[in-house]
Amino acid sequence: MKEHFIDLSKFIMADSSYEEADGVVISIPYDGTTSFKPGTREGGSAIRSASWGLETYSPVLDRDLMDVKYCDLKDLDLYGSQKEMFGTIHSIVKKILEDEKKVITFGGEHSISFPIVKAVKDVFGEVAVIQFDAHCDLRDEYLGNNLSHACVMRRIRETTPWTFQFGIRSGDREEWKFAKENNLYLKADLMNEDDINYILDLDIPIYITLDIDVLDPAYAPGTGTPEPCGFTSRELFNSLYLLKNAKNKIVGFDIVEVSPIYDMANITAITAAKIARELLLMIL
Amino acid sequence: MKEHFIDLSKFIMADSSYEEADGVVISIPYDGTTSFKPGTREGGSAIRSASWGLETYSPVLDRDLMDVKYCDLKDLDLYGSQKEMFGTIHSIVKKILEDEKKVITFGGEHSISFPIVKAVKDVFGEVAVIQFDAHCDLRDEYLGNNLSHACVMRRIRETTPWTFQFGIRSGDREEWKFAKENNLYLKADLMNEDDINYILDLDIPIYITLDIDVLDPAYAPGTGTPEPCGFTSRELFNSLYLLKNAKNKIVGFDIVEVSPIYDMANITAITAAKIARELLLMIL
Amino acid sequence: MKEHFIDLSKFIMADSSYEEADGVVISIPYDGTTSFKPGTREGGSAIRSASWGLETYSPVLDRDLMDVKYCDLKDLDLYGSQKEMFGTIHSIVKKILEDEKKVITFGGEHSISFPIVKAVKDVFGEVAVIQFDAHCDLRDEYLGNNLSHACVMRRIRETTPWTFQFGIRSGDREEWKFAKENNLYLKADLMNEDDINYILDLDIPIYITLDIDVLDPAYAPGTGTPEPCGFTSRELFNSLYLLKNAKNKIVGFDIVEVSPIYDMANITAITAAKIARELLLMIL
Amino acid sequence: MKEHFIDLSKFIMADSSYEEADGVVISIPYDGTTSFKPGTREGGSAIRSASWGLETYSPVLDRDLMDVKYCDLKDLDLYGSQKEMFGTIHSIVKKILEDEKKVITFGGEHSISFPIVKAVKDVFGEVAVIQFDAHCDLRDEYLGNNLSHACVMRRIRETTPWTFQFGIRSGDREEWKFAKENNLYLKADLMNEDDINYILDLDIPIYITLDIDVLDPAYAPGTGTPEPCGFTSRELFNSLYLLKNAKNKIVGFDIVEVSPIYDMANITAITAAKIARELLLMIL
Amino acid sequence: MKEHFIDLSKFIMADSSYEEADGVVISIPYDGTTSFKPGTREGGSAIRSASWGLETYSPVLDRDLMDVKYCDLKDLDLYGSQKEMFGTIHSIVKKILEDEKKVITFGGEHSISFPIVKAVKDVFGEVAVIQFDAHCDLRDEYLGNNLSHACVMRRIRETTPWTFQFGIRSGDREEWKFAKENNLYLKADLMNEDDINYILDLDIPIYITLDIDVLDPAYAPGTGTPEPCGFTSRELFNSLYLLKNAKNKIVGFDIVEVSPIYDMANITAITAAKIARELLLMIL
Amino acid sequence: MKEHFIDLSKFIMADSSYEEADGVVISIPYDGTTSFKPGTREGGSAIRSASWGLETYSPVLDRDLMDVKYCDLKDLDLYGSQKEMFGTIHSIVKKILEDEKKVITFGGEHSISFPIVKAVKDVFGEVAVIQFDAHCDLRDEYLGNNLSHACVMRRIRETTPWTFQFGIRSGDREEWKFAKENNLYLKADLMNEDDINYILDLDIPIYITLDIDVLDPAYAPGTGTPEPCGFTSRELFNSLYLLKNAKNKIVGFDIVEVSPIYDMANITAITAAKIARELLLMIL
Repeated sequence: MKEHFIDLSKFIMADSSYEEADGVVISIPYDGTTSFKPGTREGGSAIRSASWGLETYSPVLDRDLMDVKYCDLKDLDLYGSQKEMFGTIHSIVKKILEDEKKVITFGGEHSISFPIVKAVKDVFGEVAVIQFDAHCDLRDEYLGNNLSHACVMRRIRETTPWTFQFGIRSGDREEWKFAKENNLYLKADLMNEDDINYILDLDIPIYITLDIDVLDPAYAPGTGTPEPCGFTSRELFNSLYLLKNAKNKIVGFDIVEVSPIYDMANITAITAAKIARELLLMIL
Repeated sequence: MKEHFIDLSKFIMADSSYEEADGVVISIPYDGTTSFKPGTREGGSAIRSASWGLETYSPVLDRDLMDVKYCDLKDLDLYGSQKEMFGTIHSIVKKILEDEKKVITFGGEHSISFPIVKAVKDVFGEVAVIQFDAHCDLRDEYLGNNLSHACVMRRIRETTPWTFQFGIRSGDREEWKFAKENNLYLKADLMNEDDINYILDLDIPIYITLDIDVLDPAYAPGTGTPEPCGFTSRELFNSLYLLKNAKNKIVGFDIVEVSPIYDMANITAITAAKIARELLLMIL
Repeated sequence: MKEHFIDLSKFIMADSSYEEADGVVISIPYDGTTSFKPGTREGGSAIRSASWGLETYSPVLDRDLMDVKYCDLKDLDLYGSQKEMFGTIHSIVKKILEDEKKVITFGGEHSISFPIVKAVKDVFGEVAVIQFDAHCDLRDEYLGNNLSHACVMRRIRETTPWTFQFGIRSGDREEWKFAKENNLYLKADLMNEDDINYILDLDIPIYITLDIDVLDPAYAPGTGTPEPCGFTSRELFNSLYLLKNAKNKIVGFDIVEVSPIYDMANITAITAAKIARELLLMIL
Repeated sequence: MKEHFIDLSKFIMADSSYEEADGVVISIPYDGTTSFKPGTREGGSAIRSASWGLETYSPVLDRDLMDVKYCDLKDLDLYGSQKEMFGTIHSIVKKILEDEKKVITFGGEHSISFPIVKAVKDVFGEVAVIQFDAHCDLRDEYLGNNLSHACVMRRIRETTPWTFQFGIRSGDREEWKFAKENNLYLKADLMNEDDINYILDLDIPIYITLDIDVLDPAYAPGTGTPEPCGFTSRELFNSLYLLKNAKNKIVGFDIVEVSPIYDMANITAITAAKIARELLLMIL
Repeated sequence: MKEHFIDLSKFIMADSSYEEADGVVISIPYDGTTSFKPGTREGGSAIRSASWGLETYSPVLDRDLMDVKYCDLKDLDLYGSQKEMFGTIHSIVKKILEDEKKVITFGGEHSISFPIVKAVKDVFGEVAVIQFDAHCDLRDEYLGNNLSHACVMRRIRETTPWTFQFGIRSGDREEWKFAKENNLYLKADLMNEDDINYILDLDIPIYITLDIDVLDPAYAPGTGTPEPCGFTSRELFNSLYLLKNAKNKIVGFDIVEVSPIYDMANITAITAAKIARELLLMIL
Repeated sequence: MKEHFIDLSKFIMADSSYEEADGVVISIPYDGTTSFKPGTREGGSAIRSASWGLETYSPVLDRDLMDVKYCDLKDLDLYGSQKEMFGTIHSIVKKILEDEKKVITFGGEHSISFPIVKAVKDVFGEVAVIQFDAHCDLRDEYLGNNLSHACVMRRIRETTPWTFQFGIRSGDREEWKFAKENNLYLKADLMNEDDINYILDLDIPIYITLDIDVLDPAYAPGTGTPEPCGFTSRELFNSLYLLKNAKNKIVGFDIVEVSPIYDMANITAITAAKIARELLLMIL
C-alpha cells in the first residue's frame, strides 16, 4: 500500500533507509517550554515542506540529490529538563556519527548546537566549528541559564579551541571584549578563501552551524531575532560554495533559528532548504 | 534509531501498522493543476499538524484515540489527467475497503469524494451518502468540467439514490431546481434525530462527506469558497454526535476544502482535526 | 474586443448601463487624508471582488441577480477638503435619486452616510434612516471635527427626526445620555418585526445604513473599531430579511467600515457582499 | 513636559498613582524561555493597546472607567528559573493585596495564576477560585514540570478546596478521572446563577482566572491552544455579569493565554480588553 | 455620470480607447482549475491596484505615462479546457497585434506566454523571445501536461529558434542537458549590453516574457515557486533599461507568476507595476 | 513598587529623567483623521517595541546606549485641525531644543517634519536639513492640502535654503522640474563623503529626516508608499556612519513612515530601531 503514497513531510529525496544512508537528517524541535505553537520548534518541518518547491538538481554543483544517500528521521522526541533533553541530543548524534554517517540537523533554537558539537568532539577527538550567524552567542549566561541560545558559542568554545565565527554583527559589550581578549577568530564578514584554507590546513573534522539570521531580515524574516545589515542569499551561498573541497572533512551541519510563524511567504524556509540541499550535495 | 523520533506529520496517535489498523487515514492533495503553494492541496497536512494541539481523549464520547487502531498513509501520490488521478483514488480506496478497513480521507477539494463514493458503492453494492456542506454541488458541469468540485454531488447522485445533504445554503438556480424536481433530501439545516433515524432505517452502508465550509466563515475562514450564515462548531458537533449509534454502518468519511493559506491562526485545521478525532472515536 | 474580457472589479452581474439601471452601485473611498494603503478606503473594491465568490441566486429570496438591473460606477473621484468631498457626494447621490434610481453605496468610513442622507431628504422631503451598528455615532463632535464618523448619526438626526438604531452596544456616556434625553429609537437588539412594522407605518422613504461592525468581530474582523459581543451573520440576515416587504419604500442603502487590511481571509468582505446581494434582490 | 504626552501602552484610563489606586493592573510576560518574539509573553501589551479602541463607558453596567481608581504598573521584571520567577510574582502580588488594593493581571501563560492564588490565600486565609477555561489544567505534571500551565488548577486545588471550573471541554483521561474521583466543581457550561449563588454563600474572598481559550477559536484565535466548540463573547459576558453583586468579595482577576502573534485583526486582545473593562467596573 | 468616478482597477493612466491606443494591457487569470481564491489568477488585478501607488513619471527615462496611449481591457474571459483557453488567448492577442497595437499581458502562470508568442510568430513571421526567469521552464512535459508552466520555454523554443534566457538558476538535470545539447542562449546572469546588441542585430520583432521570480524572494515573495539567490530590483531594472533602444522592435511583453496571496505588503505587485511602467514608457 | 516593573513600551535604555537627558525621544502619531487602527500612527510604538530585540551595544561605533542619557516621552497628545496639531508639535519641539536637548522623533507620516524643522530654525536661526527618502516630497500642494506629506520638503525648502536630499527616485514631473530649476541638492544616490563634507563646511546646525522608504521594499515593507529599486540596509547604514563626525552639529533627527500593519515580521521596525540606536550613539 505504502508505495502509492508520498510523505511530503520528509526532506525531498530522503529515500534511503537508515542503514544505507550516508547522511541522516534529524530535527530538534526545541525552543523552550511552550507546549504548542512555538517559534523555532517548527523550523524543521517548515524547511522540509519548503524543500519540495526546489529542484533536486543543483546547476552550480552539477549534482543531484538523486545521487546521494540520506534518510530523514524527523523530530527527535524530547522531554524532561533542558539538561535531560540535551543529553538525549548528545547521545543520539553520537550514535549516528559512530555509525559512520554524517548528521544534518534542523533547529530549533541555536542552543542545540552545543550537545551536537560535544558529540562530534567525543567521537572524533577534535573538531573545527564554523559558525555563520549575526550574533556572537558568547555570553557566559543569559537570564540565569548557561545553556541559553545566547551562550552556545561560549560553551562550544570551552569544548574546542577551533571556532570560526562569520557574519557576526551583534552582541553585548562583554561578548566583544571576550572575543578580543581571547583572540577569537570572529569576523563581521563571511568566510572567504583565506579563511577556508586556514581551516582546511588544520586537518581536523569540521562541523558547520548556521544560524539563519546571518542573512539580512529581508532574506530571512522568519527568525527569532532578526538583525539588520546582514547578507544576501547570494553572498551567503558564495561563501558556502567554498566548502566544496572540504567534503571529506565535514562531518555534519545544522541550520537553526528558522521560525515559521514569522515567515509569511515561507521565503526563510525555502532559503534554508536550498542551503541544506547545497550542503548535502557538497558533503555526501 | 526510529524509536527516539516522532513524526508530527501523522495524525495524532496513528500508530498502528496498515495490517492491524481498523481505520486508514489518507489524504488527497488534489486542487487542480497548480504545482506548488496550492490552496486545499495542503489541507491534509494542516489537519494532521493541528491534531497535535488536541487531547487524544474526548470527554463527550468518553473515549480515547489510544483505544482505537488506525494508521496514516499520508498523501496519495497523484499524476496524469484528473481522470487518471480519480482512477487512482478509486482503486486505492477500493483496496482499503476490501481489506475490511474504514477509510478516512482529508482533502483536497470536494471533487475527490466522487471516486471514493464510487469505490464504496463497488465494494458494498449500495451506500447512503451524508453530506455536510454550504453548497449544493449539484451542477451538471462547471467551466466545462463535469468532475469539478461544483458537480460532486450530482455525480454521486448518479451513483446512488441515497444522498442526504445538510447545511446547504448556496447554489445556482439550476441546482435548486434540480433538487426540487428530483425531490432530493436536501436541507438548509443540519442533520437532526429524525434525519439520522431515517437514514439508519435504510440499513445500508453509510459514507460521510464533510465540506468544512458548512461552518460559518467565522469558524472556518481557511476554505476556498466561504459562505456566510453558516453553522457554529458546537452546532455541527451536536449534529455529528447523532452518528454515535451508526458506528457499524459508517464505512468512512472525508473532510474536504480546508485551505491552510487562508487559515491564519489555524482555527479551521484545528476544528477539522477535532471533527476527525470525534468521528474516528465514533466509527472505530 | 471588449466582449472577450470581464471586469471582476465590478459588483457581480452589474451589467446594465446607467440609463437602464434601476439601482446604481457606487463606492466612496473616503477614510481621511492618508494617500495610499488606507483602511476602509479600499472597502468598496474588497466587497466587489468578494462578490464573485458568491452565487447570483439567493435560495432564501428565490431570486437571482440576473433578474434585476443595476450598474456599478465604482469609486467616486474625491478631492479637496472633507467639506468639499461631502458636497460632491451629496450632489452625485442627489442626481442619481433624481434620475429615479436607487443608490447603493460601499464605504469608506461611516461619516459618508451623512451627505447621502441629506441628498435623500432633499429629493424626497423626508426619510426614515435605519442604522445597523455597534456604535451610537451620536457625538456632537470628535477630536474637533463635527463631520467625524463618530458624529454621523447626530448629524443625520438633525436632518430627520426618523432615525432607528439597532445593534448599538457602544458609545460614551454623553451619547447614551443624549439618546435617552431625546428619546431616540435606539436598541441593543437587532430590528424585529414590531420595529419594521412601526417604520413601515410612517409611510415615508426608507434609507438603510449598515456599519459592518454591527457583526461580532468573529464575523467581521476587517473593520476599524471592532466591538465584541456583536451579532452572528445569521442573526443579522434574519433581521434584514424583515425588509422584504419594504421594497418600494427603500430608496437606497450603504455598507460602511469594511477595512480589507485587517480582513485576512476576506470573510468580512464576503459577508458584506452577501448583505449587498440580498438587499439588492429585496429592493430592486 | 509630560502633560503634553500620552502613554498608549497603559490600560486606558489607568491614571491613578499606586498610592491612590483601588486596583493595580500588572502583566506577567512569562511564557517559557524563548528570549524574543514570544507567544503569550506579549499578551499584556496587546490587551493594553486594544483597550484604546474601546469606550471607557459600559452601557450594560452604566458605569465609566473615569469613575474608578486604578494604576497600571506594566510588565513585572522577571529573571532566573521558573521557581524564582514565581517567587517574585507571589511576593509582588502579596504586597499589592496587603496594600489593600485589588490585583488585575494580564498573562502570559496560565501557570502564573498559581503564585497569584497562593498570595491571595496567604493574605486572606482562604479563597474561592473561579476558572473560565477550555481545559481542565489538572495534570499532576506535564513534560516533567509540575508548574506547567497544564497543571495550574491541580496546584491551585492543593492550595484551596474551593475551585470552580467553567467552560471546560478538554483534558486527558487522567484529568477527567481526577475531577470525578475528587468530586470537583467542574462544568462544561459557563457559570450560571445557581453557581454564583453557591459561591457567594461561601462568604470567602473570590479570585477569578480567565483563560481566553474558554471562548471559541472564532472569537479568540489569538491563543496558544485553541479548542473548538467554545463559547461566544456574548455568552461569556452574560456569565461574567453575574459577578455584579460579588463586588466586595472579588479580590482580583487574571486574563491569560492571549497570544498576539496569532491574533491577526487583534480581535482576541480587544475582547480581552473589554472583559477587563467590565470586570474592573464591577469590582472597583 | 461616469466622469465623476474613477476606476482604480485599471492600470494607472490607461485612459485611451482601444481604437486610439498604441498599447493594450490585458490580463490572463489562468492558474489551473481552482475556481476561487487562486494563486496567480489574481496577479493582474494586484499589479493594477499597485500601479496607483506609483508616480506616472519616470525620472530615469524622463518620460510620463501621460505621454503614451494605451488602454486596459482587464481579464480575458476564459472557459473550457486548457487547450481551448489557449486558443482564445492566441486569437485575441493575434487580433490586437493585427490592429497594430503592442500587447502587454499580466499573468497568470507562465504557461500563458506560449499562445502569446505563437500569435506574435503568426503575425510577424519571426520573433526573438527574451525571458527573465529563475527557472529554465524547458521540461518536455510536467505531470503529464506538455502545456504546463514548466514547459513554456520548450514549447516556445519549438516555435522560434531565437530564445534568450536570463537569470536562470533552477531546473532539473534534463533541462540543463537539453540546454547544453541544443546550445541554447541561457545564462545565470541578467542580460548585459553584449546580449542586447546581439539580439538587436537579428533585426526581428522582440517579445519579452518576465517571470517575477527572476527577482530574489526577498524582493518578490509573492510568487508560486520562489527561488533563492535571485536578483535585486535595481539589478533587474538596470538590465531592463538596456531595452531603451529597442523600442521599435519590441512588440509586447508579459509579467507572469505574481501571486498576491503570498505578497503580504504587496511589494511584489508594486515592483511588477513599476516594471510595467518602465517597459510601457520604453516601448510606446 | 515601580522598581519591580519594566516598561517595554519605551525605547530601550531610555532611563533618564527629562531633566538629566541629553536627548529626548518623542513620537508623533499623526497620519490623518482615522481614529483607530491607523497606518503610520503606530510607527513609534512599533519602533520602540522592536528596540528590545537589539543589543544596546554597537560594535561598529564601539559605544553602548548605557553610556548616553536620554528619555522617552512617548506619544505627543494631539487634537484639533492639522494646523493646530502642527502648532503643538512646533512649540513642544522648540521647548525641548531650548532646554538644550536633542530631539529624536518617530513618525507618523512625513508631514510632521515641517513643524519640527521650523522649530529648529526658530531656535538656531539656521539649519541644514538632510533627507533620506525615496520621494522628492516637493509638491506645492497635494489633493488640496499644502501641508501634505507629499509637500514636506517644499515647505522645508521655504524655511531654509540648505536642503540635501538623498536616495530620491520618485516624484511627479513638476517636482523634478522644480528641483532642476531651483538647483536643489537632490540625488538618487545616498550621501557620500563629499556630500557630508560640503554640509559640514556650512557650519550650521544639522537636522536629519529619514523616510524609511529610502530602503528598498524588501528591507522596509512596512511603509505607506514603498518604492522599488531602493537601498539595502547596509548601504543606508554606511551612508549614515558618515555622520560620525557631525555629532556636535546634529540637533535632532526623525524616522518617519514606518507602518506596522504592513510589517509582518517587524523587519521594518527593527531596522528603524537600529537606525535610531546608531544615530543616538553618534549624536549624544
